[in-house]
Amino acid sequence: MSDPVLVEVTRGALVESRHRGAIAVIDARGKARAAIGDVTQAVFPRSAVKALQALPLVESGAADRYGFGAAEVALACASHSGEPRHVETAMRMLEAAGCAAADLECGAHMPFDRDSADALVRAGMPPSALHNNCSGKHAGFVCVACHAGVPVDGYVHPDHPIQREVTAALADMTGTKLGPDVRGVDGCSIPAYAIPLDRLAHAFARLVTGESLSPTRAKAAARLVAACFAEPLMVAGTGRLDSEAMALFGERVFVKGGAEGVYCAGFPDLGLGVAVKCDDGAGRASEIVIAAAIEAFLKPTEEENTTFADRLIAPILTRAGREVGEVRPVAGLVEALREGRAIS
Amino acid sequence: MSDPVLVEVTRGALVESRHRGAIAVIDARGKARAAIGDVTQAVFPRSAVKALQALPLVESGAADRYGFGAAEVALACASHSGEPRHVETAMRMLEAAGCAAADLECGAHMPFDRDSADALVRAGMPPSALHNNCSGKHAGFVCVACHAGVPVDGYVHPDHPIQREVTAALADMTGTKLGPDVRGVDGCSIPAYAIPLDRLAHAFARLVTGESLSPTRAKAAARLVAACFAEPLMVAGTGRLDSEAMALFGERVFVKGGAEGVYCAGFPDLGLGVAVKCDDGAGRASEIVIAAAIEAFLKPTEEENTTFADRLIAPILTRAGREVGEVRPVAGLVEALREGRAIS
Repeated sequence: MSDPVLVEVTRGALVESRHRGAIAVIDARGKARAAIGDVTQAVFPRSAVKALQALPLVESGAADRYGFGAAEVALACASHSGEPRHVETAMRMLEAAGCAAADLECGAHMPFDRDSADALVRAGMPPSALHNNCSGKHAGFVCVACHAGVPVDGYVHPDHPIQREVTAALADMTGTKLGPDVRGVDGCSIPAYAIPLDRLAHAFARLVTGESLSPTRAKAAARLVAACFAEPLMVAGTGRLDSEAMALFGERVFVKGGAEGVYCAGFPDLGLGVAVKCDDGAGRASEIVIAAAIEAFLKPTEEENTTFADRLIAPILTRAGREVGEVRPVAGLVEALREGRAIS
Repeated sequence: MSDPVLVEVTRGALVESRHRGAIAVIDARGKARAAIGDVTQAVFPRSAVKALQALPLVESGAADRYGFGAAEVALACASHSGEPRHVETAMRMLEAAGCAAADLECGAHMPFDRDSADALVRAGMPPSALHNNCSGKHAGFVCVACHAGVPVDGYVHPDHPIQREVTAALADMTGTKLGPDVRGVDGCSIPAYAIPLDRLAHAFARLVTGESLSPTRAKAAARLVAACFAEPLMVAGTGRLDSEAMALFGERVFVKGGAEGVYCAGFPDLGLGVAVKCDDGAGRASEIVIAAAIEAFLKPTEEENTTFADRLIAPILTRAGREVGEVRPVAGLVEALREGRAIS
């Protein structure tokens, strides 16, 4: 059985490409509200679960000890674009714990943000680990290690106390057992665990509601989510979906993407969590699907929709700027999500 | 019915993402040698058919009149990386016909080649139409127009005499009728026509063998293919599959990729044409599939395989450079292609 087509890419009147995938929508009590495709498949959530991986930073007291505000906490949940605000905040986090960029074990890559990347090229500078989109998450790990008095060195390894704690938080939030059998290595060198899609959706419903979490965990979850709502540009960056959606819809949706076609979202007022996996790993498709979920559950106003329209149906342009196609949800996807129906 | 999975993306021991698609293998007489997935589906071949679109440049006598050698003819078939060699050759083609970069209607984009893109950033220069990967093809169109004495202006429009001629060549080579019902607009503003995958494969078998072509067309086809074999770096660029495959395997395979997961190839000695479409449009997958076809039909030597190994199974690295997964053909794909079997 293959997952259904969720997103179509058109050129003129024809469909040029198709993206298949699965979507789980689960409420805070764990009840399925919609299930499209195989929602029991285990997927690597990649960066979509950074907020869950940041729970120890708050719960341990490290965030308080180092005086972190919303910007630092949001950056710990971020896949940022390597803009100056991101790089400076990551540096500040490390310095607060008496550490430096050299302590980061995430590796380096060019900033996603074009202007920031161009600035490095013009300066003849290679990117540093601070530019890595995961540097805020890693700075958080370093701070947790320093606060706990354990060696920072090797903090990315599965057996390091920090990763044990991070994995325990992830296992608890998703209600799963996360062992070596479902483990890979993420692009930033920390362990990646494959988790059933419906368990991920449930975790996000719990994250944004606090439902069935310990008081400490519920408080930490609320602080992480509030930080991302307060500093949406810290979570991704200029022009990116996660930042724009949280800026546009205020506290009505927490949204976070991951590599290889993953997206997760939580709707605090509705008590719903959503998890998306596009089978082929395409980010262009998972962005459309999560936008369809937002359309389905938030029912944006006309004004909000004007701003958000290009997120739900993304135009395809020629190099000369003419619109010649679009990336769009398949017909009926928004309604199917809203009504909890399957799609054909 | 969905197309089968052709390519898997792994992380550790698990499959993280999957790419579906179809592969047609047809001999020069039009007989199917292998058919995996729906090979009768009409797909936009995009840049994969640039060599077919360049037939009028040679057949009209324009290439001779303007003194084009292998470099210019190969560039007319290219999706180049915008390296200095490409930009200079496109400029030379235009100047030979008394034209200039301003005559190009393809639009501009940054060079695919990183060093060339960085050089523009450092110089504070925007990319020009000459950097567009299609500038050689477009320079060819401009030359055909000048040679024929028709206005260059508007040469990208479907009703312009140049596009009529280009479309006629494409229709003849593929044995199809190409009308407005299957027409979209390509990224470089010229018409894109959707063509059944098996017809594309047949066209490539004919292109590399001359089978059942008029003497003029067969001669033009041979010149285009020979030019690409002589100047493989002109067809794509440094480090790119098309250039590397034609450099490595000499005249044993003509290979050309297109956007949205399309690849075409022709094997002159074997009299075979191959056309690939990955349903989701992923280039990382179509590259693996065409490498699998090369593996199946050329049976590379051990030495060739050493060079080509990363093309067939592409490693996935962390940002720190550790190999943590791979993009690979599904088990049995190479054998299924070689033996003309279906895959499950």
